Amino acid sequence: MNFSSKLIEEAVQSFASLPGIGKKSALRIILHLLNQDTNLTEQFCDPILKMRRHIKTCKECHNLSDAETCEICINIHRDKSLICVVENIRDLMAIEDTGQYRGRYHVLGGVISPIEGVGPQDLNIETLEGRIAKGDVKEVIMAISPTIEGETTIFYISKKIKEKNIRVSTIARGVSFGGELEYADEVTLGRSIVARVPYKTNQ
Amino acid sequence: MNFSSKLIEEAVQSFASLPGIGKKSALRIILHLLNQDTNLTEQFCDPILKMRRHIKTCKECHNLSDAETCEICINIHRDKSLICVVENIRDLMAIEDTGQYRGRYHVLGGVISPIEGVGPQDLNIETLEGRIAKGDVKEVIMAISPTIEGETTIFYISKKIKEKNIRVSTIARGVSFGGELEYADEVTLGRSIVARVPYKTNQ
Repeated sequence: MNFSSKLIEEAVQSFASLPGIGKKSALRIILHLLNQDTNLTEQFCDPILKMRRHIKTCKECHNLSDAETCEICINIHRDKSLICVVENIRDLMAIEDTGQYRGRYHVLGGVISPIEGVGPQDLNIETLEGRIAKGDVKEVIMAISPTIEGETTIFYISKKIKEKNIRVSTIARGVSFGGELEYADEVTLGRSIVARVPYKTNQ
Repeated sequence: MNFSSKLIEEAVQSFASLPGIGKKSALRIILHLLNQDTNLTEQFCDPILKMRRHIKTCKECHNLSDAETCEICINIHRDKSLICVVENIRDLMAIEDTGQYRGRYHVLGGVISPIEGVGPQDLNIETLEGRIAKGDVKEVIMAISPTIEGETTIFYISKKIKEKNIRVSTIARGVSFGGELEYADEVTLGRSIVARVPYKTNQ
């Protein structure tokens, strides 16, 4: 692209360095900002800078947080006997969005992946054991993606906490709601036959 | 979407207020910034704030510019007897990207549109007349979109500068290069038959 202005060029490059934004979209955003008042651009940048400078990691569950402890962990209405283990914050948000879960979380910060050089010591597993050691936890739900790395991680964690006499479960896997059987992949369809559940009319 | 952090929520809203960015993309960007060092977020914001604060409009052609006069207008290698009239800066950039034009520009800042309340007095037409009055200009090329508003604008400007004894041209219209005739719209196809050009083998 041909910019006759260094200022524009650098601002476009700034936006285009973000994931999912190309040079054309970046230029569109710049021209949008130029069409508006100068202080609207400052109002755009302020919350981003503020967020990056002040965001913390919850000391209990490693969720992103405005304070030392996140809003989920300080909420007394959230069941503290249930811990849902997730790979990252995005997965935590996806589960929160369903509105179906009222327990607490534990963010691992990744999954065990020898290829990418991620070992158990790189994940927040010790703090999970620490939380379990306190004695309040009755069940740990593994909400980890069913990939090879994910399954390895689930296996590792379940071994680690086996002696603690708490239930370990994984989220249900099977054919998606509203999905067509013929488009489901073989592994999912095969396993959903093996792991069939009794039919209940009130389901 | 369910954010357990006000800081994140406000930063997401900030990004999602930009054109072409939804809440999901905004969150993806935020998590990307959080994965990186704090000063990378400042390095992202700095050029944008700087651009918005310091950008100027070229006093000759109304192009965006870092200085009083834009890089195209101060470039002595650009033919000053040729002025290409464009609706906006995006169109100017599109023409610059072709690398086919070595004259100068004049950015109107819109087209005449009675429906949207844009009259000739709202556009940079007076300054165009001023540039022509200086006597250097030999040809004005109207590179305006062939819409009703565009055609009205071309008609208005060509009337205004008719007595100045300079050539007024419009960019060629017709079937796109590489385009299939059957998919060209009726008006374009019809006009490109009426406005047919002699075939040249060196074309």
